[in-house]
Amino acid sequence: MRNVITLTTDFGLQDYYVSAMKAVMLGIAPDVRLVDISHEIPSQDIMAGSWVLQNSATLFPSNTVHLVVVDPGVGTDRNAIALQIEDQYFVGPDNGIFSLLTQERDYEAVRLSNSKYWRKERSNTFHGRDIFAPAAAHLSRGVALEDLGESVDELVTYRWTVPIFDKDGVEGMVIHIDKFGNLITNITESLIEEVVDEKSVKIYIGNTILDEIAVTFGTVPEGEPVAYIGSSGMLEIGINQGNAEEMLGVQKGAQISLILQKESQL
Amino acid sequence: MRNVITLTTDFGLQDYYVSAMKAVMLGIAPDVRLVDISHEIPSQDIMAGSWVLQNSATLFPSNTVHLVVVDPGVGTDRNAIALQIEDQYFVGPDNGIFSLLTQERDYEAVRLSNSKYWRKERSNTFHGRDIFAPAAAHLSRGVALEDLGESVDELVTYRWTVPIFDKDGVEGMVIHIDKFGNLITNITESLIEEVVDEKSVKIYIGNTILDEIAVTFGTVPEGEPVAYIGSSGMLEIGINQGNAEEMLGVQKGAQISLILQKESQL
Amino acid sequence: MRNVITLTTDFGLQDYYVSAMKAVMLGIAPDVRLVDISHEIPSQDIMAGSWVLQNSATLFPSNTVHLVVVDPGVGTDRNAIALQIEDQYFVGPDNGIFSLLTQERDYEAVRLSNSKYWRKERSNTFHGRDIFAPAAAHLSRGVALEDLGESVDELVTYRWTVPIFDKDGVEGMVIHIDKFGNLITNITESLIEEVVDEKSVKIYIGNTILDEIAVTFGTVPEGEPVAYIGSSGMLEIGINQGNAEEMLGVQKGAQISLILQKESQL
Repeated sequence: MRNVITLTTDFGLQDYYVSAMKAVMLGIAPDVRLVDISHEIPSQDIMAGSWVLQNSATLFPSNTVHLVVVDPGVGTDRNAIALQIEDQYFVGPDNGIFSLLTQERDYEAVRLSNSKYWRKERSNTFHGRDIFAPAAAHLSRGVALEDLGESVDELVTYRWTVPIFDKDGVEGMVIHIDKFGNLITNITESLIEEVVDEKSVKIYIGNTILDEIAVTFGTVPEGEPVAYIGSSGMLEIGINQGNAEEMLGVQKGAQISLILQKESQL
Repeated sequence: MRNVITLTTDFGLQDYYVSAMKAVMLGIAPDVRLVDISHEIPSQDIMAGSWVLQNSATLFPSNTVHLVVVDPGVGTDRNAIALQIEDQYFVGPDNGIFSLLTQERDYEAVRLSNSKYWRKERSNTFHGRDIFAPAAAHLSRGVALEDLGESVDELVTYRWTVPIFDKDGVEGMVIHIDKFGNLITNITESLIEEVVDEKSVKIYIGNTILDEIAVTFGTVPEGEPVAYIGSSGMLEIGINQGNAEEMLGVQKGAQISLILQKESQL
Repeated sequence: MRNVITLTTDFGLQDYYVSAMKAVMLGIAPDVRLVDISHEIPSQDIMAGSWVLQNSATLFPSNTVHLVVVDPGVGTDRNAIALQIEDQYFVGPDNGIFSLLTQERDYEAVRLSNSKYWRKERSNTFHGRDIFAPAAAHLSRGVALEDLGESVDELVTYRWTVPIFDKDGVEGMVIHIDKFGNLITNITESLIEEVVDEKSVKIYIGNTILDEIAVTFGTVPEGEPVAYIGSSGMLEIGINQGNAEEMLGVQKGAQISLILQKESQL
């Protein structure tokens, strides 16, 4: 009844780590459907993992179980947890990777303390195979969240960068650069509606100044930069049929400013 | 009954794009089997996508649905289409990516104009998630092609490079270099049979001259270059247990010449 | 009943090779579950493929069929084989890639000589699609091993590097570097228990000297190197939240020495 398990890791696919987790899950839940979200999260990059997870996990059907292993703290005393967030389930380390999902949603969380649901042989360095994957597989078979361990009240929260804004505009940053070189910022569509609305605005990023937020990047000539609301609902900077990261020389973490224009500046 | 959907994109796997499409499809068609063809098509490279698609799509069982998103024109007015080609279905942008498949096969095509089969929320930049994936999932559930939108008579055709030939030989080019560095040309086995047949031939590529078309690259010593008919039915240049791209210094787009040898040259 | 087929190759995912094999298998065994182990084995690296396979294949459920195509000898006269090793099945080239699995386990092997189970059209360069994938699919449908061809008594054995040791310590090497830069050696936990046990030891690798084998890399400060038994049961060298390959400047093949400390050295 919870028959889809997704996987999100920073393991890459050149080692045996991902397939070992799949093997363990198929041993416990032979009929489960395994769907890879990504194994190319940059090594130990909790923010990137959190971002990818948020933009795909909630699109999956009810009762999907999401196994998430971006785990720089494996081998330390960080908690291993499982969560129910609305109608979906999540399993992974308590290191903030679920922050984006939990910040505006109700959730219940438990610590994976019930060794009955661990793998029998266990290493100190591969909790993905030995603790997280078995928990995800048991959840998919209908084991109740509370059977996996005792309740956890507070989770580690990753300080997600939020833009600052006032009557003059918005200061944000580039939080992700996608495979096409599009610069994805932390400025949401709703913040733009609140602060900018119909007003005239200039957008400063690197050495580039843009004069408007366009509907899509097809509205500018080929090779030209353009600001638009991307598919994740965030302000993005792209190049029509080009790579903004390369052509604008902008990197992850770069500042982006939206400055409202006064009458006299128009 | 159409229970396999394949995916071919240039999205890579480090972003949420591929998994968002899978999530949307599983929401519509929970029992469908999702099979990745490739997400490593070079960004916006329609020719490479077309090539990979042609060499694998037709091997899949009858009634397979192929979702193809290599879409440099997203956000412009290029059409979104679905096709039936023989006993298989294809969904993607009308930008020539289906040219290789349609050039010698009958097909029917429709424009994805029926918004009933789109995702409810829709962005201007991610038609893969919002238009193509839902169409593929509905097709897999048995929705008829003509229900997705009105018929399209003519598709965008990508000018696929074809070799030129005369009584002296064949001039072709390297259209793809595979992961092992094998140089795949646009010269087909049937053209070689027609022009070369049993005659003596020299093959010129980069600074290398080869004296015959071998049965397989195992026929030359380790480290030696060899011309042979590859698994896709095209003439290829490889190195026995080596990388031809690196060792011969040849790139995609390079010219290759087959020159028939006159008696006096032998 | 043998309803899982795994795939391990050096094909990468940018070409059509992997999906062509999947297409062929789905044509023969429409209900089989396909699970990728890895397609990122370094090109023609039999040792790396053997290592990844050993660490994941045996974790899969009984009756899993493992399709393995790392095949530098395709097009030569190397044998194509299928094996039963304990309760699992393997299909691939007889080039030593199964050595690690067979060295301590009983097995039965056959040569894939029965052309009834090959693909009808056949190339000389892509036995993965034309011979191995069909064999794996037929095995998954219940075809008996001995129906695929005549028995083979002796397999090609890859000379797997084994550490040497005496009363003074152990000399081993780095056999694999994982995606996180962890250095995985050929020194097993059981060899350490036999030679080192509770005795004091110094570990020499590159320019680094370590004073103990820790329980996990979380026991040293962030950025510090540490030796520990990894998840595959081998001695590994890692950096707590860092990349040992980069920080220690050590490559695959490097020597590692464990020197037992005499009383006077303590």
